[in-house]
Amino acid sequence: MRQSHLFTKTLKDAPKDEVSKNAELLIRAGFVYKEMAGAYAYLPLGLRVVENIKRIIREEMNAIGGQEIIMTALQRKELWEKTDRWNDETVDVWFKSQLKNGTEIGFGWSHEEPITEMMTQYIKSYKDVPVFVYQFQTKLRNELRAKSGILRGREFVMKDMYSYTKNEEEHEEFYQHAIDAYKKVFLRAGVGDDTFVTFAPGGAFTEFSHEFQTITDAGEDTIFYHREKNVAINAEVLNEKTLADLGVSRDELTEAKTAEVGNIFNFGTHKSTQLGLQFADETGGITSVHLGSYGIGVTRLMGVIAEKFADDRGLVWPSAIAPFSVHLVSLCKEMDVEKADNIYHILTQAGIDVLYDDRMDIRAGEKFADSDLIGIPVRLVVSPKTLEQSCVEYKHRSETDAVLVLLNEIVAKVQAL
Amino acid sequence: MRQSHLFTKTLKDAPKDEVSKNAELLIRAGFVYKEMAGAYAYLPLGLRVVENIKRIIREEMNAIGGQEIIMTALQRKELWEKTDRWNDETVDVWFKSQLKNGTEIGFGWSHEEPITEMMTQYIKSYKDVPVFVYQFQTKLRNELRAKSGILRGREFVMKDMYSYTKNEEEHEEFYQHAIDAYKKVFLRAGVGDDTFVTFAPGGAFTEFSHEFQTITDAGEDTIFYHREKNVAINAEVLNEKTLADLGVSRDELTEAKTAEVGNIFNFGTHKSTQLGLQFADETGGITSVHLGSYGIGVTRLMGVIAEKFADDRGLVWPSAIAPFSVHLVSLCKEMDVEKADNIYHILTQAGIDVLYDDRMDIRAGEKFADSDLIGIPVRLVVSPKTLEQSCVEYKHRSETDAVLVLLNEIVAKVQAL
Repeated sequence: MRQSHLFTKTLKDAPKDEVSKNAELLIRAGFVYKEMAGAYAYLPLGLRVVENIKRIIREEMNAIGGQEIIMTALQRKELWEKTDRWNDETVDVWFKSQLKNGTEIGFGWSHEEPITEMMTQYIKSYKDVPVFVYQFQTKLRNELRAKSGILRGREFVMKDMYSYTKNEEEHEEFYQHAIDAYKKVFLRAGVGDDTFVTFAPGGAFTEFSHEFQTITDAGEDTIFYHREKNVAINAEVLNEKTLADLGVSRDELTEAKTAEVGNIFNFGTHKSTQLGLQFADETGGITSVHLGSYGIGVTRLMGVIAEKFADDRGLVWPSAIAPFSVHLVSLCKEMDVEKADNIYHILTQAGIDVLYDDRMDIRAGEKFADSDLIGIPVRLVVSPKTLEQSCVEYKHRSETDAVLVLLNEIVAKVQAL
Repeated sequence: MRQSHLFTKTLKDAPKDEVSKNAELLIRAGFVYKEMAGAYAYLPLGLRVVENIKRIIREEMNAIGGQEIIMTALQRKELWEKTDRWNDETVDVWFKSQLKNGTEIGFGWSHEEPITEMMTQYIKSYKDVPVFVYQFQTKLRNELRAKSGILRGREFVMKDMYSYTKNEEEHEEFYQHAIDAYKKVFLRAGVGDDTFVTFAPGGAFTEFSHEFQTITDAGEDTIFYHREKNVAINAEVLNEKTLADLGVSRDELTEAKTAEVGNIFNFGTHKSTQLGLQFADETGGITSVHLGSYGIGVTRLMGVIAEKFADDRGLVWPSAIAPFSVHLVSLCKEMDVEKADNIYHILTQAGIDVLYDDRMDIRAGEKFADSDLIGIPVRLVVSPKTLEQSCVEYKHRSETDAVLVLLNEIVAKVQAL
């Protein structure tokens, strides 16, 4: 894409009321726009990152048998009353409104209830399970405070998956598949090394749940971890019993601030029983379905990555989720413009995603500053000087040194990454 | 995809309160699930159709320079007050709620206001226009009645595009590009022949707007059209003056019931002036930006197509938006199952999207009924009988006669479509 046509452009300043580092950077770099506290629009660069993250998640969820659906934002009061989650005292993040006839409705902050009720239409017999469905849903949550940019919004994209299985054994099998799939997602997104499967409070039905916690100063959580033993414990459940269960001692653990980028949860048969989701088993008996839920905060993950890898010059995207693979910055004028255009064509025709800074009236220093702020993994600079040597200047966003690469070797060099 | 693993399955009956033909068919065939009147979830088959329609639209919008973004559902009262569209007397479809601090907010039923206000941050000079942005947004509208299935919902997916141009001439040029792009969208989606660019009421700023109206009994509109002269007039503006302007006479026009699948609208400089979207022009003067808006009802289009082409046996999808290209129905048992599996592998490895009815305990009649209800364009039946002749039975959903095709000619036959 030609940068001269790209909507948007970088900004000198983020809005004065923006206090979070991730949102401040993403706004200045032109990835997001702040509509109100906790609600951000995603502009072309930002939407590309969101879609890249979704693509990775989609591939990994499909690989373990997940099937994509999309539920509604509008929610029925009577459904959520069945599980005692309609009341504002029980759930304090509802947005509610009314239909014209006065019927009270809510806006979806979570979807266990509607999906589980829907399943009563499709799961009648042991032959109808297991079922694994997931969605990318824009959740609406009336958060009291929304000061963490896209890490905790009033409106955000979540991938939520639900497993419906016939018994504890089948549940456990899929639960393990989900853990493995989640690890792959975070590895591919570039935060695998610093993301830990963390023992966390389990709620009413299980002793523990599992959170995926990524080390970042932007996080609101604290974990204690041991990298070699591959153990991590949320501070909320750090006690003698947990330590003993996991076979670690307190003083061999490292403390870290983290953000919860995913969680998986075993509801057992509790919610299915509440909502009447039962099936006829092989012996003709009636059994409640086992429910597991598996979330990844898509836009939160984007915010964590933005904030975690940023340096004092701007964003630094891991290649799998970067908005473009290559930022081709041209300092060419007049006769040389055509040569720069030609490099752009060669790269794009090789299937490489290129942002091409073809802007004419912008100084080199400003172009480099913009390039660093936007944070595309590879920067190629083409100028009269590099063209004299039939080269472009090649530099990784995360490195300081640039090298000259021959024009006819660029495609191979970029594709080898 | 193996049908034995597909969520969902066909249902004998739609919900008793479902009065629309499109929703009744789509529910029975397992494409959608009714959460409440006017709010439907999209299940795997349905989501595939939605995504196919979005892909076509995305390609055509990108081709005319559109850039994809996504705005927020949450809306600020003070913004919409600037254009006098907050008041429930002016706009009667708002869902509204409050933040915890009592601040009133709305849920997006349209997005001209937030996008135009956002543009004040990015458009300052004549060098910053034109800009063309679009989104696929889940719109929330508090409709008094919601009885048309997915044709008029309280929650539905719309593609809305906005053009920001420096003057009337630049606006007109893009407006014409948009008309052409829309024609391509409807042609590719399978309703090109029966979709008319229709003269419709223009509102306060222009005499006419243009609607894209598709002939269907499910429609709520009436148009008068002349196919050869390529003229169509919404009944609301059918009068002597319009007829004279367009050079047609009343008695050469045919009346038809239609559904509005798209509309394009010229706001002139009105809304930009209200919201302070102005730029410094070449001469240093200050000018308001020209705004055009361009909508396509994505889920409505799906509903129109579902209802328009359906026959008494079920849905009939045009190939470009069908959930799968081929429905491979196996009547094989025991030794032959492997042979049917093999055909499935050959087709999928050739890049063909196949739904493979590999279910074992289902009678042939039921499989054929399901296949007709789901409406995939090509049905291939493999049975011990066809295998004896090294063939499968090949039939178009919209045709009655089946032919035998040799196994080694199937891929070519399907790809030649």
